[in-house]
Amino acid sequence: MKKIAVLGAGSWGTVLANLLLQNGHQVTLWTHKAAQATEITQQHTNQHYLPDFALDPQLSATADLKVALTGVDVILFVVPTNATRQVAKKVVVLLQELQLQPIIVHASKGLEQQSHKRLSEVLTEEIPATLRQAIVVLSGPSHAEDVAAGDITSLTAASTDLAAAEVVQDLFMNDYFRIYTNTDVIGVEMGAALKNVIAIGAGALHGLGYGDNTKAALMTRGLAEISRLGVAFGAQPLTFIGLSGVGDLIVTCTSVHSRNWRAGNQLGQGESLDAVLKNMGMVVEGVATTKAAYELAQQQHVDMPITTAIYHVLYQNCNIGTEIATLMKRAGKMELA
Amino acid sequence: MKKIAVLGAGSWGTVLANLLLQNGHQVTLWTHKAAQATEITQQHTNQHYLPDFALDPQLSATADLKVALTGVDVILFVVPTNATRQVAKKVVVLLQELQLQPIIVHASKGLEQQSHKRLSEVLTEEIPATLRQAIVVLSGPSHAEDVAAGDITSLTAASTDLAAAEVVQDLFMNDYFRIYTNTDVIGVEMGAALKNVIAIGAGALHGLGYGDNTKAALMTRGLAEISRLGVAFGAQPLTFIGLSGVGDLIVTCTSVHSRNWRAGNQLGQGESLDAVLKNMGMVVEGVATTKAAYELAQQQHVDMPITTAIYHVLYQNCNIGTEIATLMKRAGKMELA
Repeated sequence: MKKIAVLGAGSWGTVLANLLLQNGHQVTLWTHKAAQATEITQQHTNQHYLPDFALDPQLSATADLKVALTGVDVILFVVPTNATRQVAKKVVVLLQELQLQPIIVHASKGLEQQSHKRLSEVLTEEIPATLRQAIVVLSGPSHAEDVAAGDITSLTAASTDLAAAEVVQDLFMNDYFRIYTNTDVIGVEMGAALKNVIAIGAGALHGLGYGDNTKAALMTRGLAEISRLGVAFGAQPLTFIGLSGVGDLIVTCTSVHSRNWRAGNQLGQGESLDAVLKNMGMVVEGVATTKAAYELAQQQHVDMPITTAIYHVLYQNCNIGTEIATLMKRAGKMELA
Repeated sequence: MKKIAVLGAGSWGTVLANLLLQNGHQVTLWTHKAAQATEITQQHTNQHYLPDFALDPQLSATADLKVALTGVDVILFVVPTNATRQVAKKVVVLLQELQLQPIIVHASKGLEQQSHKRLSEVLTEEIPATLRQAIVVLSGPSHAEDVAAGDITSLTAASTDLAAAEVVQDLFMNDYFRIYTNTDVIGVEMGAALKNVIAIGAGALHGLGYGDNTKAALMTRGLAEISRLGVAFGAQPLTFIGLSGVGDLIVTCTSVHSRNWRAGNQLGQGESLDAVLKNMGMVVEGVATTKAAYELAQQQHVDMPITTAIYHVLYQNCNIGTEIATLMKRAGKMELA
């Protein structure tokens, strides 16, 4: 039994906190919104993020980060990508004060804006090695709503420190939540972040009226360009054939639960980006990730035609129908070139 | 402009013949059923396989193989897997008589029963090198119904002879039909055949009531075991991340058009195998391929837990719910092990 702080009470953080509690751990869920903490603790619901889901009555939330961190063995970051660094800075101050050295886990999918860094890089920069053990990434095909419903879910726990990944595997593992370990942190994080770009494209295809063959082709060629960029940063190519690569790509591109897919679908149907983001009411990580991926591809001279097309639509006001048609009709070539 | 014989007037053969004709080639579609040949030529329909699809009025079909083969530059085999050898034997007699040496292409997905050979092996064995040019495999994510509707579709033309693959690429390429070339024939054929086994599993999950996370995990782990078997036979691992690997897996496991998925779905809902095959009224290639894959895995000592579970259900009368639950709850391990 471990003492765990889960930081971030969006849908994924809430479901993971609830699951860890039911696995027998002592869990505190932290949110910066006091009203949400009260709702979770007293009403055992989180209506904005998980409507109709009854939380374990034992799950308590707090808006006081020090309360959440007191005595922890493990900290799980599930805050939005762009809040990770800022929350980490606050965590560092408290770890010093509380004299703790927990394992750090994160389960967010994206790259930091501006810096385009992976979140394990951000956490490594912000949390000195004296105040923590290893950093572990938890990722894979996992809609929070399905996990809440007890759907059998398989994830990857990745760390350069395999023993730490195995500790995290043990924390989460139960009858319906299966954890595989992996040591390719770069590949796992790049796959998780970049698949959101392809999901916007898959949604756009649907919104434009294309069918299953086109979707499969886009996903396949999307996986190829994700892999190319990941490998340029040191990822192992075979990681992209795993849970945080093709697995997460499949669930994100073929499930109605995916915010990125839904955003793309609405864009394809002719909605403006502003209207789409307003409709969604939650962070659509893929929009920022598209910019990051586009700029990284330029910098590394990696050919990413799908990402480029989505970038043109999101940031240069290009017509989505024209971009997609041009993209899918590029000249045939060698498949692995 | 080439003269092409398309052998086999199922849904895929008919759509490919129609497309080649519209690309400007001289095409004859061969079927062993005289009534079907008459329907295609005179009524411009193929109701059993492509209800509601209007064929090009120029498309002519014949039940006379010699008529189909006279003067051909290219022969495209699209007959069911288990008819390939038998049709090839008839073709050889006529090629000798007609003194022809065409390029041989096949677009069927499966392994020969009993021998478990790939179809390019079967064709190589039956058609002497003096009576043909190279053998090319056409494969990838492509429901016939979607191609008929003009959905943008990307396929792989694979041959050890890249120049022949490029000829086939040119034959098929048009505004909505995109061909990539590949030289890994083994990987392309293994991916295409084995994905049907995983599709039965994905359908079964759906029929049993599992959700998107479980489906994505099954597809990911399924791709891993397909790759393991393919690599044992000399395939390149990265082929499985391509169109005939993950691409075809996606379209087969996530589209209602897939016969293999539909068969699995009905099995999951509690139908007997006999009833399912009767309902379908067309060949369900994955049922025979499951047996082939299971026996090849045993022979090569390759771990294929998903294939084994499907085999137990189809051939040993095991309960599908129990098999799937046991499978999805196996102990966690290293992802790439």
